[in-house]
Amino acid sequence: MNFDPRGFDPKHFRWNFEEGVATVTLNRPERKNPLTFDSYAELRDMFRALAYAPEVKAVIMAGAGGNFSSGGDVHEIIGPLTEMDMPQLLAFTRMTGDLVKAMRGCPQPIVAALDGICVGAGAIIAMASDIRLATARTKTAFLFTRVGLAGCDMGACAILPRIIGQGRASELLFTGRVMTAEEGERWGFHNRIVAGEALLDEAVAVAQGLAAGPTFAHGITKTQLNTEWNVSLETAIEMEAQAQAICMATKDFRRAFEAFAAKSTPVFEGD
Amino acid sequence: MNFDPRGFDPKHFRWNFEEGVATVTLNRPERKNPLTFDSYAELRDMFRALAYAPEVKAVIMAGAGGNFSSGGDVHEIIGPLTEMDMPQLLAFTRMTGDLVKAMRGCPQPIVAALDGICVGAGAIIAMASDIRLATARTKTAFLFTRVGLAGCDMGACAILPRIIGQGRASELLFTGRVMTAEEGERWGFHNRIVAGEALLDEAVAVAQGLAAGPTFAHGITKTQLNTEWNVSLETAIEMEAQAQAICMATKDFRRAFEAFAAKSTPVFEGD
Amino acid sequence: MNFDPRGFDPKHFRWNFEEGVATVTLNRPERKNPLTFDSYAELRDMFRALAYAPEVKAVIMAGAGGNFSSGGDVHEIIGPLTEMDMPQLLAFTRMTGDLVKAMRGCPQPIVAALDGICVGAGAIIAMASDIRLATARTKTAFLFTRVGLAGCDMGACAILPRIIGQGRASELLFTGRVMTAEEGERWGFHNRIVAGEALLDEAVAVAQGLAAGPTFAHGITKTQLNTEWNVSLETAIEMEAQAQAICMATKDFRRAFEAFAAKSTPVFEGD
Repeated sequence: MNFDPRGFDPKHFRWNFEEGVATVTLNRPERKNPLTFDSYAELRDMFRALAYAPEVKAVIMAGAGGNFSSGGDVHEIIGPLTEMDMPQLLAFTRMTGDLVKAMRGCPQPIVAALDGICVGAGAIIAMASDIRLATARTKTAFLFTRVGLAGCDMGACAILPRIIGQGRASELLFTGRVMTAEEGERWGFHNRIVAGEALLDEAVAVAQGLAAGPTFAHGITKTQLNTEWNVSLETAIEMEAQAQAICMATKDFRRAFEAFAAKSTPVFEGD
Repeated sequence: MNFDPRGFDPKHFRWNFEEGVATVTLNRPERKNPLTFDSYAELRDMFRALAYAPEVKAVIMAGAGGNFSSGGDVHEIIGPLTEMDMPQLLAFTRMTGDLVKAMRGCPQPIVAALDGICVGAGAIIAMASDIRLATARTKTAFLFTRVGLAGCDMGACAILPRIIGQGRASELLFTGRVMTAEEGERWGFHNRIVAGEALLDEAVAVAQGLAAGPTFAHGITKTQLNTEWNVSLETAIEMEAQAQAICMATKDFRRAFEAFAAKSTPVFEGD
Repeated sequence: MNFDPRGFDPKHFRWNFEEGVATVTLNRPERKNPLTFDSYAELRDMFRALAYAPEVKAVIMAGAGGNFSSGGDVHEIIGPLTEMDMPQLLAFTRMTGDLVKAMRGCPQPIVAALDGICVGAGAIIAMASDIRLATARTKTAFLFTRVGLAGCDMGACAILPRIIGQGRASELLFTGRVMTAEEGERWGFHNRIVAGEALLDEAVAVAQGLAAGPTFAHGITKTQLNTEWNVSLETAIEMEAQAQAICMATKDFRRAFEAFAAKSTPVFEGD
């Protein structure tokens, strides 16, 4: 279960780790960074391992060469899928779903840096992130319907409506059409549109800001955003009473108060 | 259970069926297309029957004469309701709720073509559709409070907040005020504002686009949009793994891959 | 359990009651209206008591001196919390959560009149209201992370995403940054931006409009907005069939029909 962010050397994407921020870069730019069976699995395993790597305080998901990701590769994924029997198909859809579960399950906030093509499983990875920055060129499409499939891929019918509303999500999932960057910002999918040349710097700035915060508490925020998804109002409020009481017992809470009393800036340590 | 879209001849609305697209037109334009006990029931029965009519691939809901619908008729519905006892009242509210259940329960995506007055039960029918086109003149109001009732009619307190957000829905349901077309588009209720004279053509274009898609998979998309409404993230992701594996076993999925490999456009057949 | 809105004389905020509308004003303007242990408790007890005060038909939450609220006071709340053991911490977080439960649990719609600083527990009180008016100067921040805590405070991880969407809520809760008034309106947090000098008048107008409506039915609307939060579509529709049938048995429903038939304006009495 040990995960060494300094020694991690993935086969199917680039990894950079600096000052608590890990940057994952999908890196087959000549194909617009598609996903393959192997890269799905390696990403899933990495996000699962991050639960045991508190020195990783925030994660950036990016794509090389001006695109985020073209999603599941037609020849390396879709072709083979058409040859599989049902147990194999379910094993595949569960693996891709497990990537989303692992992204939601790790305590680190995930900042997606989106540019160019962001479609299919690429759009899903963006959707499963916590904060999304995009450029004006970003084209996001949940285009499963274009390959004869349903819009319900890796949680999209549950998650996308909560981000952009049920009506807009329905249109995107039924038609597979592109959501422009402007629409994405206006609808709440993208948190901000930034200039293309500034995209990674802005993502690093957001991630470093999060990494400098109370990271144990951030992990609790993420847990609660996940677990309060479908509970009653009464239950959510009790869950938060317990979760916040845990955070009030941390040293970071005391550090903040002491810094405030001393009119200085708190230095959080994540414990 | 047989439903013949070519022979269907409803009493309380117009029906047109062409190239897989059914168009339902509320058709008492001199009264702005109100609903009556009988039209509620006939619409409910029709949407229930559509579950057994795979040749109907998409449905358009429209209104005649420049308005969508004025909702439950004051003299034909509200008056009689004031004379009913509780079992009769509950039978009525369950019947209207059953219309929404039937609209959500049929596998066909429903495109609402909204114009002019779209209020009361008319607003609910719009809300229960999957994609909404409107004109700049469309005035939508959940005006139940104006007749002394609560905003909770036919699912509005559950569905409207998921479309436009809890705060905007609260205002509309507590006050009964009109949502303008501009607000509706900005808030995610209307997917698009189109010119009045183009409304039906645009709705037909959207519906034909859906009808030309993988309609079995569209039905699964709709099912998942409904059934993942209140499940946990983990459960939703597992549900989608199963639902998408089903779609990967369809011929339409293979057709898409083969068309892609041949650099042609897939022709979907809904199986 | 008796609550006399004419005789109520709270210690920790101002209270005004006129024509069915109660106005609660947080009133320590020199400190931007912070909350203290005592004011939390008194607000909670007041909202609980409102369940037994049908003559109170709508509630306005406001702040004195050009700010809404600076939230939990650093010296009077945060300092003492750093000295508490776990049972004491949980008792505190449950008390603050109980304020939100009581705000959601009372049948009266709550109109928040927001100006200037609206942060921490102040932002939560705004969030827990039903309708929010703000001025262009309103700065709203869920800044718990700034004091070393998680974003999950008093229900924020459940409620805020339903108002402004999961992506925008995630950013605000992870970063603690200010949501400007313009963002708040565009995202659906604020129902309307009004001129600063008109804020209270506009809030009174909205509240009086609600108070003149069918207030028993309004209470049902509020109940359903709360209780349908996490039920299935089918269950929500059945819940509304029952809830609306109750409202159809009220005198207000008959009053509305009789007024309509007489071409006059209905006068609702809340029964």
